[in-house]
Order: sequence, then C-alpha cells, then structure tokens
Amino acid sequence: MTKVLPNWLKKRAFVTPDRTAIEYKDQQYTFKQLHQLTGEKAGQLAAAGVKKGDVGAILLKNHPDTVIMIHALFYIGVQVVMLNNKLSKDELTWQLEDSQASFVITETTFLNKVETQHQWSVWTMDEMSEWPSITAAVKEEHDLDDIATVMYTSGTTGYPKGVIQTYGNHWWSAVGSALNLGLSENDSWYCSVPVFHISGLSILMRSVIYGMTVILAEKFSAKEANWHIHENGVTIMSVVPTMLNRMVHELGESIYPSSFRCMLLGGGPAPESLLKKCKTKKIPVFQSYGMTETSSQIVTLSPDDSLRKLGSAGKALMPSQVRINTEDKEAKPGEEGEILVKGPNVTRGYLNNLAATEKAIHEGWFYTGDIGYLDKEGFLYVLDRRSDLIISGGENIYPAEIESVLSSFPAVQEAGVIGKKDEEWGEVPVAFVVVNAQSAETIIREIKTYCEERLASYKVPRKIIPCNKLPRNAAGKLLRRELRKTLGDQDEA
Amino acid sequence: MTKVLPNWLKKRAFVTPDRTAIEYKDQQYTFKQLHQLTGEKAGQLAAAGVKKGDVGAILLKNHPDTVIMIHALFYIGVQVVMLNNKLSKDELTWQLEDSQASFVITETTFLNKVETQHQWSVWTMDEMSEWPSITAAVKEEHDLDDIATVMYTSGTTGYPKGVIQTYGNHWWSAVGSALNLGLSENDSWYCSVPVFHISGLSILMRSVIYGMTVILAEKFSAKEANWHIHENGVTIMSVVPTMLNRMVHELGESIYPSSFRCMLLGGGPAPESLLKKCKTKKIPVFQSYGMTETSSQIVTLSPDDSLRKLGSAGKALMPSQVRINTEDKEAKPGEEGEILVKGPNVTRGYLNNLAATEKAIHEGWFYTGDIGYLDKEGFLYVLDRRSDLIISGGENIYPAEIESVLSSFPAVQEAGVIGKKDEEWGEVPVAFVVVNAQSAETIIREIKTYCEERLASYKVPRKIIPCNKLPRNAAGKLLRRELRKTLGDQDEA
Repeated sequence: MTKVLPNWLKKRAFVTPDRTAIEYKDQQYTFKQLHQLTGEKAGQLAAAGVKKGDVGAILLKNHPDTVIMIHALFYIGVQVVMLNNKLSKDELTWQLEDSQASFVITETTFLNKVETQHQWSVWTMDEMSEWPSITAAVKEEHDLDDIATVMYTSGTTGYPKGVIQTYGNHWWSAVGSALNLGLSENDSWYCSVPVFHISGLSILMRSVIYGMTVILAEKFSAKEANWHIHENGVTIMSVVPTMLNRMVHELGESIYPSSFRCMLLGGGPAPESLLKKCKTKKIPVFQSYGMTETSSQIVTLSPDDSLRKLGSAGKALMPSQVRINTEDKEAKPGEEGEILVKGPNVTRGYLNNLAATEKAIHEGWFYTGDIGYLDKEGFLYVLDRRSDLIISGGENIYPAEIESVLSSFPAVQEAGVIGKKDEEWGEVPVAFVVVNAQSAETIIREIKTYCEERLASYKVPRKIIPCNKLPRNAAGKLLRRELRKTLGDQDEA
Repeated sequence: MTKVLPNWLKKRAFVTPDRTAIEYKDQQYTFKQLHQLTGEKAGQLAAAGVKKGDVGAILLKNHPDTVIMIHALFYIGVQVVMLNNKLSKDELTWQLEDSQASFVITETTFLNKVETQHQWSVWTMDEMSEWPSITAAVKEEHDLDDIATVMYTSGTTGYPKGVIQTYGNHWWSAVGSALNLGLSENDSWYCSVPVFHISGLSILMRSVIYGMTVILAEKFSAKEANWHIHENGVTIMSVVPTMLNRMVHELGESIYPSSFRCMLLGGGPAPESLLKKCKTKKIPVFQSYGMTETSSQIVTLSPDDSLRKLGSAGKALMPSQVRINTEDKEAKPGEEGEILVKGPNVTRGYLNNLAATEKAIHEGWFYTGDIGYLDKEGFLYVLDRRSDLIISGGENIYPAEIESVLSSFPAVQEAGVIGKKDEEWGEVPVAFVVVNAQSAETIIREIKTYCEERLASYKVPRKIIPCNKLPRNAAGKLLRRELRKTLGDQDEA
C-alpha cells in the first residue's frame, strides 16, 4: 500500500489557507502563514547545513516559534528529539548522547541546562533568527515509516529509552482520535500541556492533519483555560487529573457551555468525586489510557460510561487493539495480566536500543508492562502502571531512575522509591534510604540537594526517610508494597 | 508500518454495539446485530466450502441482506466482484469470466441474467437462507493490501477492466472523506445510490469505520429522500446531478433544515442554475471528482467556493494529490493536460490485466485519461472525461463499448457513438452508423433490438442515425466533435 502522504502542513496550507492554525495570546497564524514561516525557518536550517536524516534536539517552551521550529525540522526531514525542559542538565546530557543528536535548539533560559563541551552544536532561537536563509528543499511528502520524533521515557531499568514516533504513528493517532471523538470545522483544541510530551505534540499533529485551530498556552492556568472555554470557543482540551481538579475548583458555581464537547483526560484515573463534580458542571470527560509508545491515547472511555464503568480507561478504539496476557496466554475476561497493545499508532521500538525493542515487541504486540484486566464488555481496567510508575501532575516518574541517583550518593547503601498519594499532584515520590552516617538529618539534607542537582524538580523525592534496611523478597527484589505499608503506618501515626 | 487493522465491523460491534448501523424501511439493525447476522451468513458460506482467497461475485439490489452478504464475504476473506445489476447477460458473463469468479450470489429477479452453463456456481439469496451453518473462521484483521472488492469499468478500448479495491483503499477513502467533511456521532448518511457502485459501497465502508448510521433505499425517489432529510435526521447524502435536480424540483417552496450538512455531488459537474437554486434552498452542495479507481471522491469543492469557482471540482484533499501532465511534464497553472492522481485510496491496478495496469500507473501516479487544468489557487477543472465518456444519470458509458456491439451487427459497416445533452439524465448515448442495407428504417429497428439484447438499457443508443460515412482524421481516428456538430445541426433543423 501507499506509504507516503503529502507534507501535512504544506498540504493543509493549500487546502484551507485562511483557517487559523495557531492562536497564542494576541497572536494568530493562519495555515498559510504557518507554512510560510516554516519555509523560511527551514531555509535558515538548510543554510546552516542541516539536512535530511540528521538527528536534532529541541529544548523549548510552548510557543508559536516552537511549533514553527518543529514543522521546519519536519520540512527538512530531521529526526527531532523532543527534550523535556523540566529535566536536569545530567538527564538532558544523557538523552543527547544516547540519541547521537548533532545539534540542540534551545532558548536563553535553558542554556545553563545544555552541556556545551560535546559533539553537538548548541543554537538559541534568538541567534537563529539572525541567520541567513536559503531556499530549502522542502519535503513534498512524508514517508509514514520515517522517524518524525523521539521522546525519552524511562522504564524498569531506570535508563531512559528514546521512543521512536514515525510520521505514520502520528498520522494514525490523529485519525484514531478523530474516529473516536468526531471532527468539526469549528473545533478548537486548547493546548496547555507541554508540546515536548506526546499529549501536546499530538495536538499539533492533529491541527495540521485536520485543519484545526490550536490555542496554545505557555503554561497551564485553570483560570485562563476556563476563560477560553467560556469566551473563546474552545471545544476540546487535554488535561491530567491535577489540571482538571483545579479547573473544576476555579469554576465556582458556573457550568460549561454546550460548545465545549470533550475534556480528554490522560495521565492516570480520575477519582469518582471529581467525575461526579464534572457531571454536575456539564464537563464531558473522556478518560483515556495511552503512553509515549502509543503516540497518545489508545483506549478511551466516553462520558456516557464514565460513572457506570468507574475506574475503567474504556475500550480500544479503531484502529487499535488491546489484550491481556497472563503466563503468555490471552487472559479471560476479569483475569489480570499484562496489558498488550497493537495498532498503527504504536511505536516500532526504541532508538539505538535493539535489546529494549526486542524485549517490548513480539508479533506486532507491544508489551506495556502495565497490569490490568478487561471486563466482559471489553472495558479496560488499569491496575498497576509498569515498574511501579509514579504519575505526578501528568509527568511519569520511574522509581528506578530516582533510586539510581540516590544510590550514587556515597553514603547511601540502598534506596527504594514509591509514590505517595497527593491531593494536588495525584502522587509525589517518596524515598526510603539506608545510609552510612551518624547524623541522618544532615545527610538527608545533603542527599536532597544532590538529587536537586541531578533530577527534574518533580522527580526529587518529597520526603527522604532513613531506615535500617529495605524489605526484599528471597530473590532480593524490593517489595514496594511493604514500603507503601510502612509509609501508611507513618502517616496514620 | 502496520498494515493490518482489526476487522472493521467486528470492531465496530465491540466499540459501539447499540448504535444503529442500517435503517431500511421499517427495519433497523444495530452494529451488534449486523455483526451477528454477518457471522451467521459467513457460517453458511463456510459450510458451503467458500474460503479465504476465493473470488465470488454478487448481483444484488440495495437491501440489508446485501450489506450482510458483503460483510460476510469480507469476514471469510473472499474477493468480491460487485456486479452492476443493470447490465445485460452478455456483459455480466464477460465480467464473470474475466474475474474468474467461482460463484455468483444473486436473487430470483436477476436469475435470467446469469449464465449457468459455466465454471461458476449460481446461488440465490433465498436458497442460501436455508443452508446449514457452521462456525466460520472469521478474519480478526483486515490486511490493508488484500483485495476487498473488484468493480468493472470500461475504458478507451471498450473492454471492461476489473478495478482492484483493497481494504486499504476503502479505509483511506473513508478517512479522507471524514477529514474533508468532518464527522459527528449524529451523522446519518442516506444511500439511494447503488452499493455495487463505489458511490454506494463507500457509504457502507464509512458506516462501519465511523460507526455511522446508513439509511438505505432500494431505489432513488426524490420525495422519499427529501422526507428523510426533513423528518428522519439525515445529515449527508450522495447524489448525481440528475437526482439533485429532481430533489430540488420536488422540494417546492420549502428549504432544507440546518441539520442537513452535506450534499455530496459526484458524476459530473452541476450547471450554475442548479447550484443557485441549491443555495436558495440551503442545500450545502459539495461537488466532487472521483472514479472507481480512486474508491470514491478524491477532489472536492466546498459549498463556500461552489459559485466562486463555478465548474471546478475543488481541491485534492488529504491524503491525496492531483497534478496535470502535458507532454509528460507537469503543467503550469491554467495549462490543460491529463489529470493524474496519487494517494492511498487509489487502486493498485486492474484484476488479471497487467497491461492495463502498467499503462495506467507510473511512479505511484494514476493516469486518469481525463483532461483538465488547475487554476492558480490549485482548484481542478475537469474539461473532458476520458475516452469521451458519457455520464448518464451517474452511470458511466464508454462509446467504444457501444460501438463494438454496433459493429458486430452484420449490416453495420462502422459506428460512432457520442453523448447528447439531456434535461433529465445529463447525457444520453446517440449512435451514427454506416449500414449496408436498402431500408435503413427496418435495419435501425433491428439494430436497436440487437443492442437491447446485449447492453444495459441505459447504454442502448437513444437514437441511431444512419449516415454515408463517419468523419475521420488522416490517421483514421474518429472525430467525435464532428459528430457532435452534425447532431447539433440536426437538432436545430
């Protein structure tokens, strides 16, 4: 079958030139303008020697210039590593090395986070705006098998892996979303989730594929989001539970207008109390399950089912499939096991990491590592996120990654990290450490500083609790559920 | 990239089991019911020995049982030859032989049209309903490269060619249509065009891919169609100009409700007077250009542009491309040439006919044979349908095919067929013949009967005009424009 499609943005600028593509504060860009600016930026990149097949990273905020830069890199055919701007310098260096990026595009604010004594060039958006431009050879087509973006995600081992997202993955994800949520010429999607995450990037992809307006925000603000929904025609928004909770709170007595048709909720299940409040306030919540490897949601629950199927993430939608495996066989309804997913939106593997790819994908099925079950009607219930994943304000935190930093501190013998429930963030990380030191109190402060220097702030353990030893099973495997019990006892005391 | 998708209807019955799939007179079928009935029918086919990879033909009317049969054949993996029930016995025999079908499924009404002294089995729907059933091995997935359907279309030579339509072609056509026209949970598509044509079949495909209701009619009736739009929530309808004209006429003084959002017009351009009437009556007309080889529309004009770009078929939409070639080079805006199309909805070729495939497809581009140009904004204007195609009430008629029948009549020396404008049908075929006979009048009557026995009635020349010789150029090529001139002179006289 044909596996090339016309360059999306260029095509979109041709089909609906005058429709608004991006709105940001008081700025508006039509698809035609977006295409023109992207072409100019691509020209500057080409003049600087950037070419098809290069690996380049971006470390930027949500901003129209970021959107233009992403498309400009696509126009040339660069594989774009989407760096999380909350990460520490050490974490970013690791990802740049692993991806073998030849350049990093960033802004002055983040310069202190970028290692310069390395094989990659570092360019700021400001200096680039002064660059000369040539007429770049803009890609006329996107090959669906080509790599568009790479996003790093940690795993069981704690080493981040670069998830490959092809043009095909993004395309099919956008199409799957449209088949699920519908599509209207009047749609306008509010994007206050970071575009370096798949939740944000997928909105930008849908924009050019559908011809849909994106209202972009640099940061999330409940008040602003509610204003856009009430006064500025926003019809869809992507949120994580923390954001939704704040929006409902900020809303006070008012309810949502009928023009708002979808609150797409990712990043963990929502508590019943929140869903009930949303129902009263006429907020149509679509709970969903997805990950970087599935290029956004792959399972979604419609508002009609949200209370009837409380705790469920919904059904696998066209064009995807979900199954549960237990002991390498397909589980029966109600039976727990590992969640497997399949579909054209699912990654083909990890960048420069064949071992991880081979471990994760078998016969077209991606083994998520998450645990769950399907009920008799086929609704998915996610019980445990893989590797005891902690989800804090929509950000994924892998305990193993924090444990590895903690263990590298000289006085720490061993460390165990778990998530603790948190009213505001859903969960926050908490660490248990066995230390060789007289004064635990002093050393704990030092450990915290050590973590702050090496980890994104949302990953720094909220609490570091010294203990004599960590609970382990006979095979030496850390028993996190015992740690959770200890933490529960402490809190009650 | 992944090239399999879950079996559409089965998946749809899982995702939205209780939504209405088909409405026909006073019958309604949910997706769950449609899936169950399809499974049973597949079981009967399997019990009769029908298996994956078989080629089977259907010669049926628009009816829910026909829809079930099509899906049942898909469930097993049969390549389905969609026979046009207006064709003559000779024409059908030709297609059955060419496709190497091993069986034909038909109904009692059409039995007299099916040759039985041949290699294919002939089954009627009635007798099949009595067959025993087994549990069939239902395909869990559709491979997008597999052949779903074959539809015959004539060409320059007059010999019909079997257009291959894969699951991928149908899928991408449905997705392209959704990206163009939008998609709503409340959509309901009125199908009174034949499902053996791509215009009708594509509606059935969209139904299971989108989860959309199809209101099916056996035959077109302007009154019924208008009723469904006004009283039964129809939001979209596919028409050809003849149908639209009758509907506007039938409408009288009333206008369309705002719930009706798209009148998809195929089968040739609409006259300005009709478009103006539609505007007054609030009928949102989307003119389009497409053919069997593109699995439905590939170029569409939105209502906003319908009068501004009068005569245009619109722009090539996601995910397709159009270009104009002249002397094997890309034409400039405004320059006439052959229309080329490319996209995942475009056929990969003709069944058992490598020569025709190689002639039509080069480097991924399908050479339509139609003549047209693109204006500066990229709007397509179709000037001449390929091989002097005559479009009569939405049916394609190839002059060469009729000329070949005429020439096989002993007394006919040579024949030339052209289209004549017709108030009701758009065009009707008219033949010029050079005959060896004393009494032209008697022989003309005989020729007409001869045609009636061999051709679908809409192809039988409305008028057969005897003449001394046909106008030809130096190379002996028939000059149809001279025939048109002669016909014009006759009409004025």
